[in-house]
Amino acid sequence: MKRREILRGAGLATAIAGLAACGGKTGPAAQSGPDLKLKWKMATAWPTNFPGLGTGAARLAELITQASGGRITVKVFGAGELASAFEVFDLVSRGTVQMGHSAAYYWKGKLPASPFFSAMPFGLNAQEMNGWLYAGGGIELWRELYAPSNLVPFPGGNTGVQMAGWFRKPITSVADLKGLKMRIPGLGGEVMEKIGVTPVNMPGGEIFSSLQSGAIDAAEWVGPYNDLAFGLHRVAKYCYYPGWQEPGSALECMVNKEAFEALPKDLQSIVEICCQTVNSQMLAEYTTRNQEAYDTLRNQHGVQFLPLPADVLAALRQAATEVLDAAGAADPFSAKVLASVRAYQARAKAWHLISEEAFYDARR
Amino acid sequence: MKRREILRGAGLATAIAGLAACGGKTGPAAQSGPDLKLKWKMATAWPTNFPGLGTGAARLAELITQASGGRITVKVFGAGELASAFEVFDLVSRGTVQMGHSAAYYWKGKLPASPFFSAMPFGLNAQEMNGWLYAGGGIELWRELYAPSNLVPFPGGNTGVQMAGWFRKPITSVADLKGLKMRIPGLGGEVMEKIGVTPVNMPGGEIFSSLQSGAIDAAEWVGPYNDLAFGLHRVAKYCYYPGWQEPGSALECMVNKEAFEALPKDLQSIVEICCQTVNSQMLAEYTTRNQEAYDTLRNQHGVQFLPLPADVLAALRQAATEVLDAAGAADPFSAKVLASVRAYQARAKAWHLISEEAFYDARR
Repeated sequence: MKRREILRGAGLATAIAGLAACGGKTGPAAQSGPDLKLKWKMATAWPTNFPGLGTGAARLAELITQASGGRITVKVFGAGELASAFEVFDLVSRGTVQMGHSAAYYWKGKLPASPFFSAMPFGLNAQEMNGWLYAGGGIELWRELYAPSNLVPFPGGNTGVQMAGWFRKPITSVADLKGLKMRIPGLGGEVMEKIGVTPVNMPGGEIFSSLQSGAIDAAEWVGPYNDLAFGLHRVAKYCYYPGWQEPGSALECMVNKEAFEALPKDLQSIVEICCQTVNSQMLAEYTTRNQEAYDTLRNQHGVQFLPLPADVLAALRQAATEVLDAAGAADPFSAKVLASVRAYQARAKAWHLISEEAFYDARR
Repeated sequence: MKRREILRGAGLATAIAGLAACGGKTGPAAQSGPDLKLKWKMATAWPTNFPGLGTGAARLAELITQASGGRITVKVFGAGELASAFEVFDLVSRGTVQMGHSAAYYWKGKLPASPFFSAMPFGLNAQEMNGWLYAGGGIELWRELYAPSNLVPFPGGNTGVQMAGWFRKPITSVADLKGLKMRIPGLGGEVMEKIGVTPVNMPGGEIFSSLQSGAIDAAEWVGPYNDLAFGLHRVAKYCYYPGWQEPGSALECMVNKEAFEALPKDLQSIVEICCQTVNSQMLAEYTTRNQEAYDTLRNQHGVQFLPLPADVLAALRQAATEVLDAAGAADPFSAKVLASVRAYQARAKAWHLISEEAFYDARR
């Protein structure tokens, strides 16, 4: 551009607009320009900085701020700070906050199909869950389910295989489970109900005191890393495996749809890849910290880790099939999601039989 | 800024600089401002858009451009376009290109410890590899290894458990392997050598023609998804499992150190999380596409997928221990990395015995 063009009116206006955009002033251009400064809030279903879940939410907030160069700063609120853990969905849906970090099966009462996006009994493990979500049509179904609630969901973490739960007494048969009141959410709770357990749901932060007071007899939370943090070994000594009810639980990051759609494309992309980064990072952290906590619980706290007896697992597997079939029969969207997950799982099982499973066997 | 200031010499210069920066020209301000326009090149070890590997590299380039709002655009070059697949390291190290996408074990000749950052025989699967890299000290060791070569490495993908390889004749004993010339890179090749195989390394793009011409008798590449793409089933009918030599191969994204350090913090963060996103996305894609290709190879091409006999696996396991011990004894940095991986693996095995493995068993 030459001097004489700059000195023309149009050229000068362009020059001034150029300077304003580069110099950090506000104005209409700032809504999508480099000088955007958005202050977002994230409500979470976890105690602030609770290991893995809360720290994952905090990391997500930090990553978004870092990668956006401060164009979005995200303030994180723990469960109970703005509202209870089970109100995250509504807070984000209404736009009271722009983001939420939680688990989809908490919304089973509102959206019967939601549990399929966190954990399905005898379903997909973490690697398969990510395969289905990111490359098998899962996310597309999840977005379809949440869109009428004004939410855009992203996978926001994964715990890997969980534990079946903590019990005060050994479980040697299905009869030992009958009549127990157990904290177990989602579809796993419905399966347990079929074999005589009374399932209850409550936020993680209430499990220890409920077990201690005797309000519940047993509880599943996550696994060694998280269960140690809540001190569950202090009120129950038998920890059973494997976590048939949550073989690879996905956490979720929900973004208010209008807030997301108002972002320029680069920031939309940043929010999405920060979620995927945290999804990956959280599984890495669980994989590592669970190993360490497993050692600590066995060696320092005398916890007994025991396998569920084969006949108990068989009864649970049978009950799970019935619960899943009933979920599909009761709700058309659940039927659609279930068909997708079951088709994926059938192929994943066949493939992992000669890959992941065969390798585990070969390495022993 | 008022008109009369613009019209002064200094003001005008600023206005012109501002316009130039916004328009994509170079200049001092462009090095860190929102109007930065960097053009990066990425050399890869894969044919352009080869499924999984090449498409992963292409996705990484697109993500960086999207998330940076175009401040960095990345042009991807397939193997052979700028130099051969095995020269990616040198191209990035010298700064001829800013980025590379490849696999660390290709650099075994330069850096004996490099294979530990892609695949270790009977070592970590994908979930464990990510656990070790992201949350178990792995990345820190990798950065230390690559820093003297002027490179910053990031995990850039994972294939999951690979296959043991393609053979023209059935393998019923160790004797059937003796004397075969097989394409198998990294530490896996050294293990095969111990039991009488002649290992060779060559870029993926040369495997089909080498098998066809009889220059090699057998080959491992990746798994169904990738092996189908190269048509390996057309020159060998027996595919053995599991991929003991590559139980969860990490790909790598290398960035030239000066190019990385010259980036403003937000773009450094974007490059890092785009790598982690592609790392996660690629495993999801392999998990899904391998299932489909496994079906296709069995049902449409008559490929026989067979387990390696137990005594062959036992011989390989024994040879692997010797190869790993020797690698540690020969090179101090390898010893340090091996100690870290082995400690991680011992705990991961114990933990996955009651979580991932126990769940696979319970689900059958």
